[in-house]
Amino acid sequence: MSRRRQIYEGKAKILYEGPEPGTIIQYFKDDATAFNAQKRGTINGKGVINNRISEYVFTRLSHIGIPTHFIRRLNMREQLVRQVEIVPIEVVVRNVAAGSISKRLGIPEGEPLPHTLIEYYYKDDALGDPMIAEEHIACFGWANNEEMQDISSMAIRVNDFLVGMFAAINIRLVDFKLEFGRIWDGDYSRVILADEISPDGCRLWDMVTGEKLDKDRFRRDLGGEEEAYQEVARRLGLLDNDGPSEVLDLGAHRKLRTKK
Amino acid sequence: MSRRRQIYEGKAKILYEGPEPGTIIQYFKDDATAFNAQKRGTINGKGVINNRISEYVFTRLSHIGIPTHFIRRLNMREQLVRQVEIVPIEVVVRNVAAGSISKRLGIPEGEPLPHTLIEYYYKDDALGDPMIAEEHIACFGWANNEEMQDISSMAIRVNDFLVGMFAAINIRLVDFKLEFGRIWDGDYSRVILADEISPDGCRLWDMVTGEKLDKDRFRRDLGGEEEAYQEVARRLGLLDNDGPSEVLDLGAHRKLRTKK
Repeated sequence: MSRRRQIYEGKAKILYEGPEPGTIIQYFKDDATAFNAQKRGTINGKGVINNRISEYVFTRLSHIGIPTHFIRRLNMREQLVRQVEIVPIEVVVRNVAAGSISKRLGIPEGEPLPHTLIEYYYKDDALGDPMIAEEHIACFGWANNEEMQDISSMAIRVNDFLVGMFAAINIRLVDFKLEFGRIWDGDYSRVILADEISPDGCRLWDMVTGEKLDKDRFRRDLGGEEEAYQEVARRLGLLDNDGPSEVLDLGAHRKLRTKK
Repeated sequence: MSRRRQIYEGKAKILYEGPEPGTIIQYFKDDATAFNAQKRGTINGKGVINNRISEYVFTRLSHIGIPTHFIRRLNMREQLVRQVEIVPIEVVVRNVAAGSISKRLGIPEGEPLPHTLIEYYYKDDALGDPMIAEEHIACFGWANNEEMQDISSMAIRVNDFLVGMFAAINIRLVDFKLEFGRIWDGDYSRVILADEISPDGCRLWDMVTGEKLDKDRFRRDLGGEEEAYQEVARRLGLLDNDGPSEVLDLGAHRKLRTKK
């Protein structure tokens, strides 16, 4: 593949111009960051697994009618997605108190919330992604009312789906982050699910042992990050121990095109 | 007056049991605190002025149909109010960026907001009164949906009134804090405006000079706190320079009953 124009390099992904107008290639890195990139490291094979898990989740979400930016996985570390205008809001859906909300509101980690809670954060690294309310979003025009209704109802549907999906493989979905993007059709726009869904942006606890199977292993220096990410992929049936699997080759950084 | 039972001592006020069931006496102290009480001091005569300004504002708000806890001023530092169940939410109404929002969202101080913004904070000193969204309020049951509708529409009405009132005396109302309380009538409850409205909880800038006439003088070590508070009272016609005034005697801590 000839050299492609890089559009953006983020903390965990690189975006390249896609083969057709309106498409983007998402390249998944092994780089891990935490605490607004004050902590940096690498989780071997993370990019490969996240690419695969995100493909799996986005594909199934589209089957229940959630519009997403995902088009198809291209190779081990890359997927083709629709180009969107990113809504500058991180949507966090919480089922159980953990992380920042425990600290902020004094709720012990692991305490189930009275009901599912949606939080919004303003995507701005320099400001440390501050929490915001719908009032700020309306005031500064980061999304309109209709978009916020679509975003919140999609977030709840995604949560319902993911809670079920993870429960089936004995994982408790504590919380997760979503991002949305705007696509235009003439003067008309709508929001669709963008970015990725992977153990980088979810808190996933083993239902029996309580073991963390997500980026908190990295954030909190617990070790075993690689194994945790692999374990999630394995339980989803994405790592095949019985035979050759494209995904098994976790260390490789080759950018192979899938045959088809 | 015989000794009364103290119910609560806050940072700027003491609450005593009132003369009749369902009433409370609010005693206004000169104590000033900032940054969640990490900074402490005194502003001479502040209690007297805040008692008087708050009486003035609450009385006029009730004239436009805003239900408040205020019954009547008792003396220089005390007012009789209805006992309420405090809703554990600080409601902040902002017209112009200043203070925490400027820091949090990177908006220069003094920049008018695109439109009036309501923010909510969870009243909890130990947690530092963290910002919350309506989603948190609903999730943890701090107020119900109907109450939040009443609170937000009252907050906007209070802002409309106060912007006009302060504009008339050449003061720009940058932002202010409100608190609400629940009163019960059998099984039925409603929310009314509680606490106080004074330069302690407002940002008030002189429209011509930009001079701060509020607690920021104390927070930011600008000096002249006493004079600033007096200036607001004077412009409201509450400090009479031409003759004896109960309020002029700012240093006195006597707890006189008003005659009537």
